[in-house]
Amino acid sequence: MSNFDLIIQKEALLIKKKLNDSERHVVVLEEKGKTLEAKLKETESHVLVLKQKEALKVVFSAGILGNAAIGPFNTPTTLIYTRVITNVGNAYNQNTGIFVAPVRGMYYFSFFFHAGGRHIVRLFLMKNSERILECSDHKTLNDGADNGGNAAFVELQQRDQVYVQLQPNTHVFGGSYTTTFSGFLLHQV
Amino acid sequence: MSNFDLIIQKEALLIKKKLNDSERHVVVLEEKGKTLEAKLKETESHVLVLKQKEALKVVFSAGILGNAAIGPFNTPTTLIYTRVITNVGNAYNQNTGIFVAPVRGMYYFSFFFHAGGRHIVRLFLMKNSERILECSDHKTLNDGADNGGNAAFVELQQRDQVYVQLQPNTHVFGGSYTTTFSGFLLHQV
Amino acid sequence: MSNFDLIIQKEALLIKKKLNDSERHVVVLEEKGKTLEAKLKETESHVLVLKQKEALKVVFSAGILGNAAIGPFNTPTTLIYTRVITNVGNAYNQNTGIFVAPVRGMYYFSFFFHAGGRHIVRLFLMKNSERILECSDHKTLNDGADNGGNAAFVELQQRDQVYVQLQPNTHVFGGSYTTTFSGFLLHQV
Repeated sequence: MSNFDLIIQKEALLIKKKLNDSERHVVVLEEKGKTLEAKLKETESHVLVLKQKEALKVVFSAGILGNAAIGPFNTPTTLIYTRVITNVGNAYNQNTGIFVAPVRGMYYFSFFFHAGGRHIVRLFLMKNSERILECSDHKTLNDGADNGGNAAFVELQQRDQVYVQLQPNTHVFGGSYTTTFSGFLLHQV
Repeated sequence: MSNFDLIIQKEALLIKKKLNDSERHVVVLEEKGKTLEAKLKETESHVLVLKQKEALKVVFSAGILGNAAIGPFNTPTTLIYTRVITNVGNAYNQNTGIFVAPVRGMYYFSFFFHAGGRHIVRLFLMKNSERILECSDHKTLNDGADNGGNAAFVELQQRDQVYVQLQPNTHVFGGSYTTTFSGFLLHQV
Repeated sequence: MSNFDLIIQKEALLIKKKLNDSERHVVVLEEKGKTLEAKLKETESHVLVLKQKEALKVVFSAGILGNAAIGPFNTPTTLIYTRVITNVGNAYNQNTGIFVAPVRGMYYFSFFFHAGGRHIVRLFLMKNSERILECSDHKTLNDGADNGGNAAFVELQQRDQVYVQLQPNTHVFGGSYTTTFSGFLLHQV
């Protein structure tokens, strides 16, 4: 071999070494890229869950259109709050008075009422066929009217029904602004 | 050409092929990197929105400093809840009694009162000039005092004003602890 | 040098140049990868914080098991709401009636009661030894019963205690469904 050939041979070896180094470098980068991609995918899925939780809005408030006493009736009667103030998610039905849980979750419900003194008042907050809360008032001829209300956080399964039930032989004032029913989804479970 | 020259020529072709492969590999990695970067940018913007939503806190509670009846007056009068318990975001103004929505959103408001029986009680929860809720009580000389309250979720536009208004010729007890007004931003819309 | 040698020499220079370019390209990619990795790490930590905030659930509601008046007593008495409806996070203790804040945060509390007219009613919502809210009713022989309630958002430090206290010489009706105490963590601070 000539001197030149020796130099070229050395050069070629050097180039092949550098090329191999470069390839190893690229492979390492590729692995790091895959790790990053996997981590990002995980983060994306966490963010998606957070966004979905944040996006699910269930909240309602309603009064009872009108200006007259409701009841007394002989049987338990679901109060139908016909004046919708808010109904995001449409879980409250203003034709039936019933809220149906769209998802399993922790919900808050409150109800307030006004009522005259000529009859007893007895309202139950019902979850399906179970009483959760009550608010009552005695009959009195000495006080024209009274107010009441109650509220609670209740865990519901999907499709559980929540409503306010007027008990037999009692009454309440069906005021558009005074007798109200509200609720919201605090968080899914 | 010599034998050596042939070998070198072959070697050079092989090196050039490997170099091209390596470059293609790098270009593919670069494209993957750009995709990752774009995806991360998207995720970052989602996280930023979630963080901003999470960071915006609007919540207040206040009573009425004092220990005396307020009213009756001849005209509708905004109740000024001067005892601030909580006022994160400063949307409630304790000098005017008015809550001003800092952003469009779904808000919750509640008010509770104590009042003597010598006069009618009639309180409206107002949104700008619109009545949202009411709580009233009759006059009675036979029951020294009564309580009442109401609550609702209300969607507000930015700058909407919410306040409790005492109706003409009615009164309420201005108790620091008993007659209260509260609200919070449930979520932006 | 032969003609071939000259070509090879040129070729070798070209290859070395391309190899250097490729290496620079890889180094740039490596830097970009590190930047992406750092950004992703930051986003991951933001998401972790959001997830942790979202995951911390503190919410309770309880009534008072039974169907009889509580009090009057000679001393201030913490009401023990023995009928737990909801107690996520176990911050409310049904044996003591006391809610203990698990973290610093903004909390909401509400209480509602029913009571007969034979005695005064006077309930305080207490934060440690400080009165936050009150709801009272006068004694009357002319109205069989009354209702009341109150609610507020209160910032608590970790370990702050919140409870409902019946004042001396007053009473309340301990109804499982009518006399209730609720609260939840709105957000950490």
